Amino acid sequence: MTTLNIVKIGGNVIDNPDALIKFLRTFASIPGSKILVHGGGKIATEVGNRMGIESIYNEGRRTTDQPTLDLVTMVYAGLINKTIVAKLQSMRCNAIGLSGADGNVIQASKRPVASIDYGYVGDIHGTGINTKTISSLIEAGLTPVFCAITHDGNGTLLNTNADTIANELAAAMATTTTTRLIYCFEKKGLLADIADETSVIRQITPANHAQLIETGTVSGGMIPKIENAMKAISNGVSSVAIGHADDLMQLIDGTAGTQITQ
Amino acid sequence: MTTLNIVKIGGNVIDNPDALIKFLRTFASIPGSKILVHGGGKIATEVGNRMGIESIYNEGRRTTDQPTLDLVTMVYAGLINKTIVAKLQSMRCNAIGLSGADGNVIQASKRPVASIDYGYVGDIHGTGINTKTISSLIEAGLTPVFCAITHDGNGTLLNTNADTIANELAAAMATTTTTRLIYCFEKKGLLADIADETSVIRQITPANHAQLIETGTVSGGMIPKIENAMKAISNGVSSVAIGHADDLMQLIDGTAGTQITQ
Repeated sequence: MTTLNIVKIGGNVIDNPDALIKFLRTFASIPGSKILVHGGGKIATEVGNRMGIESIYNEGRRTTDQPTLDLVTMVYAGLINKTIVAKLQSMRCNAIGLSGADGNVIQASKRPVASIDYGYVGDIHGTGINTKTISSLIEAGLTPVFCAITHDGNGTLLNTNADTIANELAAAMATTTTTRLIYCFEKKGLLADIADETSVIRQITPANHAQLIETGTVSGGMIPKIENAMKAISNGVSSVAIGHADDLMQLIDGTAGTQITQ
Repeated sequence: MTTLNIVKIGGNVIDNPDALIKFLRTFASIPGSKILVHGGGKIATEVGNRMGIESIYNEGRRTTDQPTLDLVTMVYAGLINKTIVAKLQSMRCNAIGLSGADGNVIQASKRPVASIDYGYVGDIHGTGINTKTISSLIEAGLTPVFCAITHDGNGTLLNTNADTIANELAAAMATTTTTRLIYCFEKKGLLADIADETSVIRQITPANHAQLIETGTVSGGMIPKIENAMKAISNGVSSVAIGHADDLMQLIDGTAGTQITQ
């Protein structure tokens, strides 16, 4: 296998049909092995509102109760996943949609109830990613498309953060092949000044990342993104790129976005 | 590959959680290669009602308009399919849920508009079943679980009758391996007297099927079931069994239901 590109897209792309098609065309044209991980977008909230499913909060945190789990299973694993797969097929990319339950590819554990009960939310542990089955699908010429639903192995589906899925997939696949992780979000990259779209931090390495945080160059919501990327790098992922979905090819070839490397 | 068992279950099993678990336990215990095809049940109607999606009829036939297509994609490919897959995983059956778009396993054509416009309804043609990919999944130890959603190869998902999917799958797979087709429905088998559950016609062959219809022994809704089964047999399927989901193992070993053979 050549380099495996694992690309994560968020709701901002999924909510915009034109942006989604444009993104998928570029994704389909990535040569070699690839995996897509998609988030949920606003569709789940819209469908939930129409169905009268109320968002339940527990100490300020959204809880995945049974109706919400059913809702996200319908929308993420059904509507969004199959829509993306059908579009990729029309672009001659042999996509196969997967939840974690399919082929037992991602097993998670229901988050234990401590001060907050998150409900049917799953955390992935080191051994939860079934690299053997994922590799065999890729070797058969298929492109896995993951939604943010996992399972516990005991018959229960679980809602799992899509960024986490991308990160854990990359760390696990890196044990078998050279793996690059690309996070697409609504900005051009991690920004030194959140108000200035041109202030993209081009390069982060273990040598400079602590300094970037300490000096306040990177702050707020950018910090967890860096921490996740550094964790992926320390787990053997060869590089992590963070930037805008419109720049997918440039994120892959290293000419756009924030590039995080060893 | 030994005999491949293709089992179709309908809404009556899916709508009853206890019956579904019981059925899945038996299905999981079938030795050798197997495929499950599931229908929709009442859940789609319930979710549609809650979302305010009205059923559209065109000259008395239900039409799959865009909101209905989105609805069945959510419910069939999402909620029902992933629930079944997660339950089978807990029973140590390595299930993988598939729509026709996944791995391009079933391609269909939107039914042409003649006197009636059925909307996004797909008909499967001879070459629509991708036996190569389906076989490779089975050889990898996976058990495909098909929902009743296909695609047209040009980016559009299509609603396709689950009986048709089972029939076309069986005919196509029969070209590669010995294939048995099992239809589970709410009766013990095809009945000579619709009011008498014990009047199961045990054996139908090409030699006696025309006579059964001509003499009125088989009538009404039983006739299309026989015609479909005879078509499967003529397409090389080694046997077709029709009966109750509770009798799955007996349907497979030939000791219950209606057995249709050459």
